[in-house]
Amino acid sequence: MEYKFSDRVLTLKPSAIREIFKYAADPSYVSLSAGNPAPEAFPSKQLAAISAKLMEEEPILALQYSTTEGYPPLLQHLKEYMKSSRNIGTEDDGVLVTSGAQQIMDLFTKSILNEGETVICEAPSFIGSLNDFRSYKAKLVGIPMDTDGMNMEALEKALETEKNVKFIYTIPNFQNPSGITMSLEKRHRLYELAKAHDVMILEDNPYGDLYYEGEPLPSIKSFDTDGIVIYAGSFSKVISPGMRVGYAIGPKPVLAKMTVCKQGQDVHTNIWSQVLCYRFMTEYDFDAHLAGLRKIYTKKRALLLDLMEKHLAPYITWDPFNGGLFAWCHLPKGVDMMEFVQKALEKKVCVVPGTAFLTDENEPCDAFRINFSTPTDEQLTKGITLLGETIREMVEK
Amino acid sequence: MEYKFSDRVLTLKPSAIREIFKYAADPSYVSLSAGNPAPEAFPSKQLAAISAKLMEEEPILALQYSTTEGYPPLLQHLKEYMKSSRNIGTEDDGVLVTSGAQQIMDLFTKSILNEGETVICEAPSFIGSLNDFRSYKAKLVGIPMDTDGMNMEALEKALETEKNVKFIYTIPNFQNPSGITMSLEKRHRLYELAKAHDVMILEDNPYGDLYYEGEPLPSIKSFDTDGIVIYAGSFSKVISPGMRVGYAIGPKPVLAKMTVCKQGQDVHTNIWSQVLCYRFMTEYDFDAHLAGLRKIYTKKRALLLDLMEKHLAPYITWDPFNGGLFAWCHLPKGVDMMEFVQKALEKKVCVVPGTAFLTDENEPCDAFRINFSTPTDEQLTKGITLLGETIREMVEK
Repeated sequence: MEYKFSDRVLTLKPSAIREIFKYAADPSYVSLSAGNPAPEAFPSKQLAAISAKLMEEEPILALQYSTTEGYPPLLQHLKEYMKSSRNIGTEDDGVLVTSGAQQIMDLFTKSILNEGETVICEAPSFIGSLNDFRSYKAKLVGIPMDTDGMNMEALEKALETEKNVKFIYTIPNFQNPSGITMSLEKRHRLYELAKAHDVMILEDNPYGDLYYEGEPLPSIKSFDTDGIVIYAGSFSKVISPGMRVGYAIGPKPVLAKMTVCKQGQDVHTNIWSQVLCYRFMTEYDFDAHLAGLRKIYTKKRALLLDLMEKHLAPYITWDPFNGGLFAWCHLPKGVDMMEFVQKALEKKVCVVPGTAFLTDENEPCDAFRINFSTPTDEQLTKGITLLGETIREMVEK
Repeated sequence: MEYKFSDRVLTLKPSAIREIFKYAADPSYVSLSAGNPAPEAFPSKQLAAISAKLMEEEPILALQYSTTEGYPPLLQHLKEYMKSSRNIGTEDDGVLVTSGAQQIMDLFTKSILNEGETVICEAPSFIGSLNDFRSYKAKLVGIPMDTDGMNMEALEKALETEKNVKFIYTIPNFQNPSGITMSLEKRHRLYELAKAHDVMILEDNPYGDLYYEGEPLPSIKSFDTDGIVIYAGSFSKVISPGMRVGYAIGPKPVLAKMTVCKQGQDVHTNIWSQVLCYRFMTEYDFDAHLAGLRKIYTKKRALLLDLMEKHLAPYITWDPFNGGLFAWCHLPKGVDMMEFVQKALEKKVCVVPGTAFLTDENEPCDAFRINFSTPTDEQLTKGITLLGETIREMVEK
């Protein structure tokens, strides 16, 4: 049979990042291309204990069908915790538990975007979200990043000239892939611009709790008095990505549409894992756990910075990254980025070419992404040393 | 803000079934409206043991990111098991693990259906799938059911007259809601018609292992030598619905598109639960477990049949249901179905009005659905007795 696919998937193509991942799975390569939490960051013992008790005392709760909106005690706790600790959520907002935060991007886009309408996003931005927007035939308009977040003049111009903009997608904290954090001033400006143009904001915050320098900034959602922001929260980087549990906080009418879409998509989120997240948050000291994660990654980041100063400088530079899991590295003028990535691969070290994160993969790009959460200290040392050899050979030849 | 939703969700409306579920959650009501497995059908002790060992020995496997396609040992096992035990899957087929079988309906529709194209389905059919097809702006064409499955003359006519038919959706075994099983002859005829019209088949089989009378029939997928059938398998009724694990078996090019869509939707299926399904299938006697389930439900079905003969006959009749979880009951001429459901609610017993399962909820319908897997024997007895009182009061008044 000759398969006739829908127009929306015809536009989707396998990404360059997938080719890199093939090498990354080979243990003879050093992979700096993933985005996985460090193995030592998982609260494995606590989750094992909660799970054992749950299956002993209430197995049917863990195994039976549940409601599309989410496990009610988790919904209630997230509402209270995010309000008291982050000032997120108003009386007009609801909470929806999703199968990872990725599903929020999908359900929100499905609920508000018609084919051909526009999504404004950061350039570069998270490839998974961009591909999902594409799968609904969104027109993607990328806004260049300054070291303190989206360029506001470019954003303003896009809002004025683009037709049918439905929402702005932003990762304000320690953005993937750039590591950049949006300044407080820009957060307010973004909010005001969106409001003035009657456009919603999708605020994706998987890394907000992973800050290693300075104090965290308030989220855009925390000053949303107009009901224009959908906040995407995730347990993937702070409890476990394998469990696929995320949560949207946003205006109730929007969540209601997303809930109907979720019912058709997967009925509800794995309930066993929802109960684990709820009990881990309430039976253990969750804030102390987050502080512990920051301690693990602060050390890894310090090692990476040392190694980059030693091996990559002065040829390669990087944007400030005060949190998160990634460093975004710029190559010197005259060095072709894809050629650099290829030569690094020949030395058996994998990084992700920056073009993978652009709204148009064919645009020029001088950057590549390094992940420092997944490799061991030894792997990180070996990998950065090899990247240093690669750039020196290319520049000093 | 005045929210502007996409055209696709504007057409989605909350279903009548949701109103019923509000009552069903009230413990003073007898609910015959659910579709949950019986609590005693869960292999809770085995899953608790597997989970404890997994978290003791390989917690990172259960908690870390995994691949979109699914846990490789589970993929391999499903491929072998479904081939050897059900003759399902060819060299040209692949396997994709999904977040419940519901996600297969969504990913397949997203991958092959453009807005406005047609899905042919059984009338009545499963409401969750119909709503998902609607969310992609499918035109739904319902084919009336005979007691041995879709009416083939009506199907043939629809295939000849409808434009842009993309696929036929069928639940051939113990269909939800009708309980009807498609005859072997009709399975072959359906396959040949689809092939002749260059249309794919989405074969949804959540209940196939739950047969209580006679031998199971081969699935349509088992004679798919042309690569036109996507088979949707599920662990929801045979291990646990709360874990949300299903699997698609179908042509590799189609699964490849569905995999790209899944990556944007939820990255991958909860990996902890995937490992549990794999180990339960391979470390325990899975076929003996299925036989045990049939024993539980055979008894429940026998009780329901006794009760229906005693309390509902001769006024109410039902279609043959030799397996599954549901009975589809027809009211006598002159009795309004919605009025009957309402009067039953006043007696505190919930059933689902048949209109909820139609492609057009405004069409006339003389039927309602009873579930017999969820209620206890006492609840089933009380519920059917009350339904008997209801019909007698309406007919004999």
